[in-house]
Amino acid sequence: MRILIDGMGGDNAPQEIVKGAVEAAATIDEEIVILGDEEAIRKELKKNKYKGDRITVVPTTEVITMHDAPVKAIRQKKDSSMVRGLSMLKDGTGDLFISAGNTGALIVGARLLLGRIRGIDRPALASVYPDMKTMNPCLLVDAGASSESKAQNLLEYGLMGSIYVEKVWDRENPRVGLVNLGEEESKGTSMTKDAYHRLKNSGLNFIGNVEGRDVPKGVCDVIVCDGFVGNVILKLTEGVAMSIFKLVKASIMENFKTKIGGVFLKSQLTKMKSDFDYEEYGAAPVLGVNGPVMKMHGSSTATAVKSAVIRGIPYAKEGVVDIIRQEMLNVELEEEDYE
Amino acid sequence: MRILIDGMGGDNAPQEIVKGAVEAAATIDEEIVILGDEEAIRKELKKNKYKGDRITVVPTTEVITMHDAPVKAIRQKKDSSMVRGLSMLKDGTGDLFISAGNTGALIVGARLLLGRIRGIDRPALASVYPDMKTMNPCLLVDAGASSESKAQNLLEYGLMGSIYVEKVWDRENPRVGLVNLGEEESKGTSMTKDAYHRLKNSGLNFIGNVEGRDVPKGVCDVIVCDGFVGNVILKLTEGVAMSIFKLVKASIMENFKTKIGGVFLKSQLTKMKSDFDYEEYGAAPVLGVNGPVMKMHGSSTATAVKSAVIRGIPYAKEGVVDIIRQEMLNVELEEEDYE
Repeated sequence: MRILIDGMGGDNAPQEIVKGAVEAAATIDEEIVILGDEEAIRKELKKNKYKGDRITVVPTTEVITMHDAPVKAIRQKKDSSMVRGLSMLKDGTGDLFISAGNTGALIVGARLLLGRIRGIDRPALASVYPDMKTMNPCLLVDAGASSESKAQNLLEYGLMGSIYVEKVWDRENPRVGLVNLGEEESKGTSMTKDAYHRLKNSGLNFIGNVEGRDVPKGVCDVIVCDGFVGNVILKLTEGVAMSIFKLVKASIMENFKTKIGGVFLKSQLTKMKSDFDYEEYGAAPVLGVNGPVMKMHGSSTATAVKSAVIRGIPYAKEGVVDIIRQEMLNVELEEEDYE
Repeated sequence: MRILIDGMGGDNAPQEIVKGAVEAAATIDEEIVILGDEEAIRKELKKNKYKGDRITVVPTTEVITMHDAPVKAIRQKKDSSMVRGLSMLKDGTGDLFISAGNTGALIVGARLLLGRIRGIDRPALASVYPDMKTMNPCLLVDAGASSESKAQNLLEYGLMGSIYVEKVWDRENPRVGLVNLGEEESKGTSMTKDAYHRLKNSGLNFIGNVEGRDVPKGVCDVIVCDGFVGNVILKLTEGVAMSIFKLVKASIMENFKTKIGGVFLKSQLTKMKSDFDYEEYGAAPVLGVNGPVMKMHGSSTATAVKSAVIRGIPYAKEGVVDIIRQEMLNVELEEEDYE
């Protein structure tokens, strides 16, 4: 298996990307291909004392930046690390593509270059959501690939998320929940009511509506919502958590007595903060396109890159894309049965 | 001025309601009318040793419960404390109505019995949102009165929220922000883009889009969003905050050393938790109906009731409803100018 890594994506490229790839290579048997500025990448490989032969470099001359407009960037920067990586995934010279680059461009690129899986109306970006009760994260779909979703899209998110969590995270019969105003079936917009109905009749392990207050409490393995709500959930969770950590810190710094208290608690509080750290969870999948593509956080460090590479392997190895493809054919056949 | 209080609404009625009313009466000059089961209310007044003459009781025989369907309850339970209170507000025998009862019924009742302000398409329920940076709360509109809002509704929310915050919270030229996927004007759904345009041209102090991560950081005084998103924001904030407090508590209880740390920090952490307490902020207004109606949290204690009464007075006294009414007439005149 050959893992393709975008060497030029994210705030810390190529330094942290290469460092993370080297660290990953030390623990896995897969080949790793880093795409990007050859000189810069070789320099980093040297800096990290990499002497093996399982990491290779594919030189590219262009870079898609965070400020590039997605569609234009994918169409015009043909020799960018992102476009080249996606193309290698498409032609089979790579099995998994991971990038910390421009999210919009990655989604558009995956859709344009790999194509949607037949039957999937809208590919989705998933995100790993920290569960603050059991500390087992769950998968939130959609994290913002679309801002206006229809009920059928939400069904697809549930279906794809469920397959991913089962195969990649190795959780049996994942529980799927729908973000809504209230727990009752009758709650919500006409769209969420329709989505409820579709999810309920889908054969998935649908546990029903999940209210905002239960989202962080690990009540399900896959959280389904439209991309607008998903974006608000992810960013608000980060905002609230960081604000509270700042308040705790300020409480500790308040006076001599509280500072002593802080010393006694330091290691626990540091551990707690690291539980919220997305770095350990690896990257999040783009779902619904013809190939396993993963998105790392833009500010990923070497540790995050290493996790992303190692934890991303089953996305390709377990054939998740094929399973989704097959599942969508079954859905289509069932629909024909009804006609 | 005469303040009408629903003596039968909420989890702790009538005990905490009456106790809070008695505490409020000790600090304000206004008359207070408590509506509900006369015997039960008089018993509580006696228990709280109330001997004044500024609290009176209006006996009612029916109660709208949390489980009642809103429209049916308002139509059928004519002698409920809620319907009677709203009717007194309408006929001018009261100036402000406060309830901790069934939220849906209160909104429906306000709309049916008082009527919408001319020009307002959808009345909104506001909510006091804790600001975790400056500790000055802001007002979130809509908190869930409608689950499907149009761009024009969001403009109305901004307008009404701005007037309320200026007059009731005494903040000059309140900053209004729109919850969205990103900061740029071009982000979001077709609806939020349209709302952005309307808010920008409204004459309000519109600061633009606010992302989820900035919602808790006090970047604006009025947070505008549709009711679905508002509901998710409020409940998720509560869920994340409570989950983190539990984790902090568990960290403290972990071993002997951390327990000592906890002792040193106890008063600070307790204070911090109370900053998140909605009780001190008073109640939240129903906006866009012909009369000042306020909703208290269902689990309000006497302290919350006291705050709600005292902090609610300017909603009536400053003529907020009249100002909104006048503002909507101006909007209408301006629109005619364009024609």
